[in-house]
Amino acid sequence: MPQGQPAAVPNDGLTTRQRRNKPLLVVHTGDGKGKSTAAFGLALRGWNQGWRIGVFQFVKSAKWRIGEQTVLERLGRLHEETGEGGPVDWHKMGSGWSWTRKQGDAEDHAAAAVEGWAEIKRRLADETYDLLVLDEFTYPLAWGWIDVDDVVTTLRERPGRQHVVITGRRAAPELLEAADLVTEMTKVKHPMDAGQKGQRGIEW
Amino acid sequence: MPQGQPAAVPNDGLTTRQRRNKPLLVVHTGDGKGKSTAAFGLALRGWNQGWRIGVFQFVKSAKWRIGEQTVLERLGRLHEETGEGGPVDWHKMGSGWSWTRKQGDAEDHAAAAVEGWAEIKRRLADETYDLLVLDEFTYPLAWGWIDVDDVVTTLRERPGRQHVVITGRRAAPELLEAADLVTEMTKVKHPMDAGQKGQRGIEW
Repeated sequence: MPQGQPAAVPNDGLTTRQRRNKPLLVVHTGDGKGKSTAAFGLALRGWNQGWRIGVFQFVKSAKWRIGEQTVLERLGRLHEETGEGGPVDWHKMGSGWSWTRKQGDAEDHAAAAVEGWAEIKRRLADETYDLLVLDEFTYPLAWGWIDVDDVVTTLRERPGRQHVVITGRRAAPELLEAADLVTEMTKVKHPMDAGQKGQRGIEW
Repeated sequence: MPQGQPAAVPNDGLTTRQRRNKPLLVVHTGDGKGKSTAAFGLALRGWNQGWRIGVFQFVKSAKWRIGEQTVLERLGRLHEETGEGGPVDWHKMGSGWSWTRKQGDAEDHAAAAVEGWAEIKRRLADETYDLLVLDEFTYPLAWGWIDVDDVVTTLRERPGRQHVVITGRRAAPELLEAADLVTEMTKVKHPMDAGQKGQRGIEW
């Protein structure tokens, strides 16, 4: 983690405390592994702060239940049982978003992505969560399913103190421009280069 | 996550299944954020598989309890209570390793690092864990406190199926050479560049 003093004190009219508590837009991009894993690691940390966690999984996510979903939902139930940590909602696009009962349009990924973004906008307006993870959200943007300008404007104008983490390759320049924190995960070496397939517990 | 077929089928005499279940040495390096967070995310995933998780935190770790420690230890207790997931041991260098009662040498970081590595070697030989996270382990290597060749040889020869994840900047070339999977986290943009300090829930 970065330590010490910031490189410059900005002339933004905010106190250190206000600046410290600024809601962050975080982007994990690049071709390497760890983008989603680090985002769910942040969710873990946020849960421990008692934050309300909302995960929206676009694309891959949808088809199966990854380990993080099981664990974070378990932590959400622990919160209900004991009051520890915070509540967790996990929404995924796969076979229809969890807030809808529609299963029929599961094949229309573009429509499902648009529906997901519309819900995220509602949640942001309502300040439902303290931390939102928009997993692999860069893809529906890159494919033109969701309007980048709408996303950037909505995020810039979100009320209150809502942290947002977006993951995925090929993040739009406008999104990077709007982000407070951007990390690029670069693949240096991967077992698949040596002919090895993905394995349980490591890849999912 | 990487999908599809590996680029080449290696001529290593292993079956696909053997190759798939090969224990991995994973390194998260680079100057960006997410190295440790992604490693703890993998621990989360491993816990969900019922793996025995051992975390060894070098350096920073030591001084305070980060969110991941609270949550992963809580998941370890959940395992004891309900049998869900796997057991979790969290060892940190800070004020003396948890398996020793010595507090006196907390100031001698080089000696504490050497002691930590000796314990890791014993655990590897005993196959105590299915996943070991050696957090910020690159630093005692970079500082010459622990011998890189000893580490690489020990890891190459570790018995059974023990995954090892090592995090930290400036990973030694020998370590990268020995690793199966290396991701470099690169800082593209960070709030501290804009004069913002770290904040709870995001940085720790």
